[in-house]
Amino acid sequence: MINIALLGYGTVGSGVVEVLKTNQVSINKKAGDELNLKYVLDLRDFPGDPIQEKIVHDYEVIVNDPEIKIVIEVMGGVEPAYTFVKQALMNGKSVCTSNKELVAKHGAELLQIAKEKNINFLFEASVGGGIPIIRPLNSSLTADEIDEITGILNGTTNYILSKMADEGLDFDTVLKDAQEKGYAERNPEADVEGYDACRKIAILSSLAFGQQVDYEDIYTEGITKISAEDIRYAKKMGRAIKLLASSKKVDNSFYAMVAPVMVASTHPLYSVNNVFNAIFAHGNVLGDVMFYGSGAGKLPTASAVVADAVDAAKHLDQNIVTFWSSNKLELSDIKNSKKRFFVRIHDDEVKAEEVEKAFEYVELIDAGIVGEIGFVTEVLTEAEFAAKAEQVEGIINYIRLED
Amino acid sequence: MINIALLGYGTVGSGVVEVLKTNQVSINKKAGDELNLKYVLDLRDFPGDPIQEKIVHDYEVIVNDPEIKIVIEVMGGVEPAYTFVKQALMNGKSVCTSNKELVAKHGAELLQIAKEKNINFLFEASVGGGIPIIRPLNSSLTADEIDEITGILNGTTNYILSKMADEGLDFDTVLKDAQEKGYAERNPEADVEGYDACRKIAILSSLAFGQQVDYEDIYTEGITKISAEDIRYAKKMGRAIKLLASSKKVDNSFYAMVAPVMVASTHPLYSVNNVFNAIFAHGNVLGDVMFYGSGAGKLPTASAVVADAVDAAKHLDQNIVTFWSSNKLELSDIKNSKKRFFVRIHDDEVKAEEVEKAFEYVELIDAGIVGEIGFVTEVLTEAEFAAKAEQVEGIINYIRLED
Repeated sequence: MINIALLGYGTVGSGVVEVLKTNQVSINKKAGDELNLKYVLDLRDFPGDPIQEKIVHDYEVIVNDPEIKIVIEVMGGVEPAYTFVKQALMNGKSVCTSNKELVAKHGAELLQIAKEKNINFLFEASVGGGIPIIRPLNSSLTADEIDEITGILNGTTNYILSKMADEGLDFDTVLKDAQEKGYAERNPEADVEGYDACRKIAILSSLAFGQQVDYEDIYTEGITKISAEDIRYAKKMGRAIKLLASSKKVDNSFYAMVAPVMVASTHPLYSVNNVFNAIFAHGNVLGDVMFYGSGAGKLPTASAVVADAVDAAKHLDQNIVTFWSSNKLELSDIKNSKKRFFVRIHDDEVKAEEVEKAFEYVELIDAGIVGEIGFVTEVLTEAEFAAKAEQVEGIINYIRLED
Repeated sequence: MINIALLGYGTVGSGVVEVLKTNQVSINKKAGDELNLKYVLDLRDFPGDPIQEKIVHDYEVIVNDPEIKIVIEVMGGVEPAYTFVKQALMNGKSVCTSNKELVAKHGAELLQIAKEKNINFLFEASVGGGIPIIRPLNSSLTADEIDEITGILNGTTNYILSKMADEGLDFDTVLKDAQEKGYAERNPEADVEGYDACRKIAILSSLAFGQQVDYEDIYTEGITKISAEDIRYAKKMGRAIKLLASSKKVDNSFYAMVAPVMVASTHPLYSVNNVFNAIFAHGNVLGDVMFYGSGAGKLPTASAVVADAVDAAKHLDQNIVTFWSSNKLELSDIKNSKKRFFVRIHDDEVKAEEVEKAFEYVELIDAGIVGEIGFVTEVLTEAEFAAKAEQVEGIINYIRLED
């Protein structure tokens, strides 16, 4: 019997309990031993809930119990999760977590402690919910040098953008609908401003390139400026607007960015809609690969956390090597990153001439919206685009393109 | 240093040599040791090729060399691959293979030998080429009970169907084009009749359900009867025709089938085009998940084989447990499997009446093709459909639907 403690009995925590119960027989078979949930840490009590008898309010009970071999942390946030997880690892307990803030900020250090203690720090659920991506990156794509990893990593924004596209609605209307349905939080900033996706791409980039990518270094733009008109243009161009979180290695420079992008219909991420997430990767010998599934939600996330617990149980005294050095990877200035840009501009008699003068060659897009001009530039660096855009007055919005 | 032998220097074999060379530094880092290719077994000689000095014609040299820890088998076909692989495992050498015929037929036995010897038999490349699917099924989806696994597992047929849809061409024309481009073999039977996909879904089903699924038991239909007209109807219905290889657990019955299917546009497999493959799975807690990528080709397949070699190197004296019992899983008779059916029928004045009498409720589809009627039935078992179809004369073709 392997004793487990669960930190946090919120949405994901209760999902973990449900998954452990629902699939008890097959999980124990795959773990090679019985997984026994001994404690649940939460500040609250849950009278009437069968879990109540396992509830403890004091973490010391858990971290000092030598019977506990695996700690599942699903509290979220950096503190007290960081302190708790570090203590657990220092005391020789493997940790599985769904906590992206914790992993993005302290992943390299916690992996190092796990390695020294010959145990494991696993975090499949921190990115892409139930989609297997961390373990495949670490154990399956080992023959490749990964030169790109691009994901739709936030279900809330993907739901909003899909709904805007399907129904021609504007951002505010759809956000309100998403909040009513529980797909968006009452304070939606972390999702709609791209902060959530930013932490997740920081984790994936650190794993893909083997060095620490600080999320604070990643250029991040949300979807609040995307309008129904932008989406009309995208459709006219046969494209979809997606919030992409992306890291690319170009020559020996690394670029990382979170921003809404007009994705071509031939791109595998084009048809990833609603709350689904997907992660696209490119390896130098493998070519394109994509992983798709439920990026959030109680049970999918719990499925990934429990799968980590099974892996931890199979490797109780053996560290699964993960390449994520604490040496910081210096990202290149986004100014040198190259893309085509879609631009919308208020129309007047001199505008077409002004645009031509600033951008030389552009492709005009007519989405039937009066009073404005829409066009796509050639491939430009961010710096080149910014310089040209300064020469033109009345820019309404611009969105990058991905083919 | 870990010594490796390669069996077969054909397309995939030369890809393995190329991948090992191209990514030597990162591969050795991830393996935790230097992987050294000591022998290449092939009947031929390759004068002028740097590999020539490693060429051996006699397998005894390899299987009796105690320095060889890992054997990579990429010859294809059941024999002599089976004899060679079994001997290698019996002599304590881990084996990595891309050979679907071998794995489908002898996977359970070879896994059992590897377990007894505390080494590994790995076969990521046998299904889906470079797409990580075997390892994720085995190590990532462990918290779930998988109740469906459905794949586009054959790149040749997917290329043909995509090209037919894009250009409105018929099967024979596109097959000829595919053969000229090297996407289809001169004898295309294994691909177009579904035999290749059948072996692959047998492997995936055995892993997903943990018991031996014999490929001979799987109902298999190819794409040779699919016409340009069928595709016109599919488009009219907003669907795509795909060769799906599928296993489903319904209540406590297991159904497996390979057949062309009209896939709804909301299904993740709908937009998998050209030579790409994808595997969709459904877990009872995870929900939907899909893995997408290059299902064949020299380098993607070699990438998967080498990733297995890295895993074998990391687990030289430790068996990675895989649940694939040699106890045969009894598949249910396909007659009880339920689906909607699309039917095309020669039109004459009494046909509509006849159809209505036999099928009661049907949805008529008008794709503007004169002289015939197209319609979709309600959900029927295969047996019910066959009985009703017998009452109607002049059926041109029928295709199952998947939503």
